[in-house]
Amino acid sequence: MPERERRDQDRPRRRPPRRERDFAAIRGGEDAALRRRILSAAAEIFAARGFAAASIDEVAKRLGATKGLVYHRYRSKGELLADVCEAGLTSLAARAEAIADRRERAIARLTGAANLHAAAVLADIALHRTLAGATSGMAVATLRGSEAKALASIVEQRGRYDAIFTRLITDTVEERDLPSGRDTAMLGRIFVTALDAPILWPQDSVAELADRRGLIARQLAYFALRGIGASDATLREEFSR
Amino acid sequence: MPERERRDQDRPRRRPPRRERDFAAIRGGEDAALRRRILSAAAEIFAARGFAAASIDEVAKRLGATKGLVYHRYRSKGELLADVCEAGLTSLAARAEAIADRRERAIARLTGAANLHAAAVLADIALHRTLAGATSGMAVATLRGSEAKALASIVEQRGRYDAIFTRLITDTVEERDLPSGRDTAMLGRIFVTALDAPILWPQDSVAELADRRGLIARQLAYFALRGIGASDATLREEFSR
Repeated sequence: MPERERRDQDRPRRRPPRRERDFAAIRGGEDAALRRRILSAAAEIFAARGFAAASIDEVAKRLGATKGLVYHRYRSKGELLADVCEAGLTSLAARAEAIADRRERAIARLTGAANLHAAAVLADIALHRTLAGATSGMAVATLRGSEAKALASIVEQRGRYDAIFTRLITDTVEERDLPSGRDTAMLGRIFVTALDAPILWPQDSVAELADRRGLIARQLAYFALRGIGASDATLREEFSR
Repeated sequence: MPERERRDQDRPRRRPPRRERDFAAIRGGEDAALRRRILSAAAEIFAARGFAAASIDEVAKRLGATKGLVYHRYRSKGELLADVCEAGLTSLAARAEAIADRRERAIARLTGAANLHAAAVLADIALHRTLAGATSGMAVATLRGSEAKALASIVEQRGRYDAIFTRLITDTVEERDLPSGRDTAMLGRIFVTALDAPILWPQDSVAELADRRGLIARQLAYFALRGIGASDATLREEFSR
């Protein structure tokens, strides 16, 4: 225990003195928790109502907070959408990059990243529906100016995320665990979208599958890996780990 | 040439008399053409703006018609959405059923239906985005009453369409062109959604791929068939036709 805290304990009736930076840290922590709550509520509303029809009011209502609390942080619905997508992609990309950087064969890393992505989609379908709406251009055609720019940067960020998979596929081809001589860019695109499949399933049915999420993520990953050419022997080995 | 028409030709200056049922047939033909135009405009608007934010006004504007022309046929946006989906699915299902009923091996029919579906998605991405929005429950959570019922019937119709693929997969397993002992229902769902993949691609990029549609449809079908377990030998044979 540091010297100062011990001294504070000796005087239990007096509040321990706190410096400005302690307050800032606490505020920062609260802000991060609040941001997560706002983004999660926003994803739910955007996924259920569609971005164009959703409002900051509804997001605040879902949080049980005032409109002002949300507007204090986000000047518009477009900014909120961009932050939902950015936060979701940043966290997902960090985990995928960590797998991509492992010292393993490329096929093992590709399998790991595929499982990660499919499991992430099944675990937070609202986020991934919202992301798909934003990056495919579905339902966001109305954005203009700075909001349109924020969206364009999300499309780029998603492109960089998808490129992790394309790179892993290229490496796997080089290590001869996938056939060569094919259009890797198109293959990567098809591969990642296949893992995104639950976005297109009826929402109720995804909720019903909640207790089989791990199994379904593996089925999706297996399907996508076999689809791009992994052999049965390779897949048996990767999926028996 | 029937007697009456010949007589009419002999009197070129007089308009040929038309019976009530001729008029009805012409009106029917005009109606069918107008319906197609309305549904196509509606799909474009729903796909670009999102169902919840779209309005019948915008659909009419896109057609260069009055609001009344659309309201005369559809009392609400929900009815219009249901008809877009119903017309699209009915036509697609008829073509898929025709392939499923051919007197060929099941793998050949499954390949044909997969190619058909992927090509249809790439050829009319607006319709398929709209369909996906309706059947996944994305952006239509706000519908109530008769509109919600119409949507529920679309979800069922899509279920019956997807079942064509599940049936073909079952037949292919029985004919031993696919491995047995797996969850065919989940496999069918993953299979069809993989063919739906372009719905999730950035809208601009799908437009850019327009001249390679046939090739991409085949890549998607190949990927999905390999994904569910078709052997390379089988695929070589099916895709060399």
